Amino acid sequence: MSLESRIEGDVPVTDAETATDAVGDDATLLVSGFGSVGYPKAVPRALAESGRDLSLTVVSGGSVGEEIDVALVESDSMERRFPFQARPAVQEAINEGRVAFGDRHISSLGDEVQYGGLVDSEDAVAVIEAVAVGEDWLVPSTSIGTTPAYVEAADRLIVEVNAAQPRSLEAFHDVYRPGKPPNREPIPMTDPGERIGGSRVEFDPEKLVAVVETDGRDAPYEFRDPTEDDLTIAENLGTFLEAEVERSPLFEESIRLQFGVGSLGNALMGALGGADFGDRDLVYFGEVIQDGLLDLLDEGELRSASATSLALSTEGQDRLFENADRYAEDIILRPGDLSNSPTLIDRFGVVAVNSAVEVDVYGHVNSTNVGGSQIISGVGGSGDFTRNAPLSVVALPSTAAGGDISRIVPMAPHVDHTEHDLDVVVTEQGVADLRGTSPRERARLLVENCAHPDFRGDLRAYLDRAAERGGHIPHDLHSAFSWEE
Amino acid sequence: MSLESRIEGDVPVTDAETATDAVGDDATLLVSGFGSVGYPKAVPRALAESGRDLSLTVVSGGSVGEEIDVALVESDSMERRFPFQARPAVQEAINEGRVAFGDRHISSLGDEVQYGGLVDSEDAVAVIEAVAVGEDWLVPSTSIGTTPAYVEAADRLIVEVNAAQPRSLEAFHDVYRPGKPPNREPIPMTDPGERIGGSRVEFDPEKLVAVVETDGRDAPYEFRDPTEDDLTIAENLGTFLEAEVERSPLFEESIRLQFGVGSLGNALMGALGGADFGDRDLVYFGEVIQDGLLDLLDEGELRSASATSLALSTEGQDRLFENADRYAEDIILRPGDLSNSPTLIDRFGVVAVNSAVEVDVYGHVNSTNVGGSQIISGVGGSGDFTRNAPLSVVALPSTAAGGDISRIVPMAPHVDHTEHDLDVVVTEQGVADLRGTSPRERARLLVENCAHPDFRGDLRAYLDRAAERGGHIPHDLHSAFSWEE
Repeated sequence: MSLESRIEGDVPVTDAETATDAVGDDATLLVSGFGSVGYPKAVPRALAESGRDLSLTVVSGGSVGEEIDVALVESDSMERRFPFQARPAVQEAINEGRVAFGDRHISSLGDEVQYGGLVDSEDAVAVIEAVAVGEDWLVPSTSIGTTPAYVEAADRLIVEVNAAQPRSLEAFHDVYRPGKPPNREPIPMTDPGERIGGSRVEFDPEKLVAVVETDGRDAPYEFRDPTEDDLTIAENLGTFLEAEVERSPLFEESIRLQFGVGSLGNALMGALGGADFGDRDLVYFGEVIQDGLLDLLDEGELRSASATSLALSTEGQDRLFENADRYAEDIILRPGDLSNSPTLIDRFGVVAVNSAVEVDVYGHVNSTNVGGSQIISGVGGSGDFTRNAPLSVVALPSTAAGGDISRIVPMAPHVDHTEHDLDVVVTEQGVADLRGTSPRERARLLVENCAHPDFRGDLRAYLDRAAERGGHIPHDLHSAFSWEE
Repeated sequence: MSLESRIEGDVPVTDAETATDAVGDDATLLVSGFGSVGYPKAVPRALAESGRDLSLTVVSGGSVGEEIDVALVESDSMERRFPFQARPAVQEAINEGRVAFGDRHISSLGDEVQYGGLVDSEDAVAVIEAVAVGEDWLVPSTSIGTTPAYVEAADRLIVEVNAAQPRSLEAFHDVYRPGKPPNREPIPMTDPGERIGGSRVEFDPEKLVAVVETDGRDAPYEFRDPTEDDLTIAENLGTFLEAEVERSPLFEESIRLQFGVGSLGNALMGALGGADFGDRDLVYFGEVIQDGLLDLLDEGELRSASATSLALSTEGQDRLFENADRYAEDIILRPGDLSNSPTLIDRFGVVAVNSAVEVDVYGHVNSTNVGGSQIISGVGGSGDFTRNAPLSVVALPSTAAGGDISRIVPMAPHVDHTEHDLDVVVTEQGVADLRGTSPRERARLLVENCAHPDFRGDLRAYLDRAAERGGHIPHDLHSAFSWEE
């Protein structure tokens, strides 16, 4: 496919190898990409294969492909990484201390890069995948993520124009910038399906040092088929939500939902089509569009879907690309600081549903570090939604490792979401509604309603030992982690 | 003092004992009060002395006086308590399991009561201290807190009009209501010193069941004189901030500050007057006005101060009351969901400075539970500010118990603020700037810059043991809490 129509004006078209000349050995790479789609492919690959002695800081929007999180790691070119990753190669490097990783919330990531001192932006190069570019604008591809902030923060910009991503993706984008504190404006959005910006990311033309033509598909998530546990969790969640929307004045007219990234989230999205919410308007306001949402849109169950990434399977991408005009009527992609905005999550009364590694009996959630130490991916947007949603749910199977390990534990060895943030826990065993409870009450609910029966006896025994020591949140610190070791 | 001029229209004036008839034995009391001021005094006292067998749920804005958190506890009338408390009697009852306590963020408390299922609002009575009342309005006294939401959520309302609180407090209030999700409007505030509402809290006149005349002062916080450590912490913070405001584009024109409640916060507020911020506009945007802020206002160092409570000492109250007209030009009191609003903290680029019980080497903060179990007060607004401020600082002495205990610990046994939220730690030993670091790097900074020299050896030994086990966040779970037991 020719890219002639995608590249407008007098821009410096070159090959990926030449483009890497703009990247210093110790540079900060600010790359597009979120939900494993929309990331640059050629320039990171060329850097990995350059033979140079690189010590790069790589900051993405969210998870990206192996051109970045495998190739740059295996070539020993990556020294530092923010804010999220999801490939075994980089996870291993982080856990072994070869890559320094900082795990950051999505909503504030752009500000941290632009204003907050997360990176040294004096030697920062933005590398952005686009479906079209001009002298002072680009159109993102399958995700937006933190691209607008990165383009503003970097002093050099490389754009990869990818022929494998259809130009029609332009129709999905809504790029709004809220301005700089302390003169930031109120975000003028009153409906999750509203558009308040344009489809282009604008930049200072002086920054554009290279435009590289590419032609390669994303390597997106692969979803497993729903397990029996997934379906039971979806059923328990659906039953709880059906009652809650009748009870709460927030859901008289509509329900705005967010689901976390992953196979369970995807299964929950799809399965919720079966729940009976009456004639309420159903809207998605989250960070990723997964395949399950396309089904709901096709079935007319969902009015609109707002996110920052089309984190679809390859089949889902094909389906979307072939019907881009139709889907773009109902799907809006926004920058991550809008898709995950604390005030929009609050304003729209979002019901947030996220998964976790484990939950402790007092309602603290570990989303990131197995055994407190071994990172899997990162907090992503789970903190943005769990903290700010008026109804936040953590949904997870009660056990892991084929039933050998309980995910309801005495004490979380790493805490990403606190007892102050979480409302409801759902497992395949049942539902624990933690609202209005004390820690001691929460413990009973979580053990009796959510833990697997095989572990309830041991959990009760822990709580008995802890009760002897007393306190608002009774613990026996000596044995709190005996299950983790 | 006659209250005739404070009570307008046809309202049901009665005595406190009679007013308690409106309170069922198992009722939820939604009381005004924040920062230990502006709470109702006569009706809670009358309930405590009623001899009735009460099982009340008591929800305040923040901390309140002994009429509530001592008298109702000692008379065994309180079964459940939200969201914050600061009196030994109620703390002891909570830690012994006699009162069920839920520790909640201030910013979302009103929504949790109105919409979130925190309490059963079908049997809820709002008891609000005011300086004036009419048939469908009241003017709050020395704090606003969650009063507007409580008045909306309750089906009955008792107003205590307090002659000891000057009517001139009306000039401080700015009561704005953001509407109900999902149709909540953007908050139309573009400057921390702006007023966007009126001075009155309005209500459905059907709800008003009793107006009680009272005449008693608040029992506010008493601040200790700054210790040597306080002054050194203030100096370290000042030096850090002077450099930061030069570096960051957020502080080119102005600095918006928040300080946590307490003697250290008060000392830091006062001492910051000595820092050199050039000709930048200095503004306070926090949850409480403490005495230190009056000094800064008097010295012309501060342009305006926004909060939800006049949490002054008795001397500070006298000073404010005698010059109410003048102070009301620069001090604005707002509901807690505005003073602590995530989006306003972000929009105004607030620098948040809060204290803590302890910080672990990886940057997790325990603000609430000593040893992970024994609650002191509650998370209050520390989570609202630490999570949403573009620059969040935790300031604390490096030791407790006269130097016997380190406040920099291997692992926090309770986490209120996570590694994803915190930017900078300041102790009397120095400053650890955690931005852009990995957990292993954070640990070195915190041990070498912030821990007391007496404990650095033991902390290094812990990190060496943890390093043998590896991981992104190395821990030796077996000995992680050996200091806590």
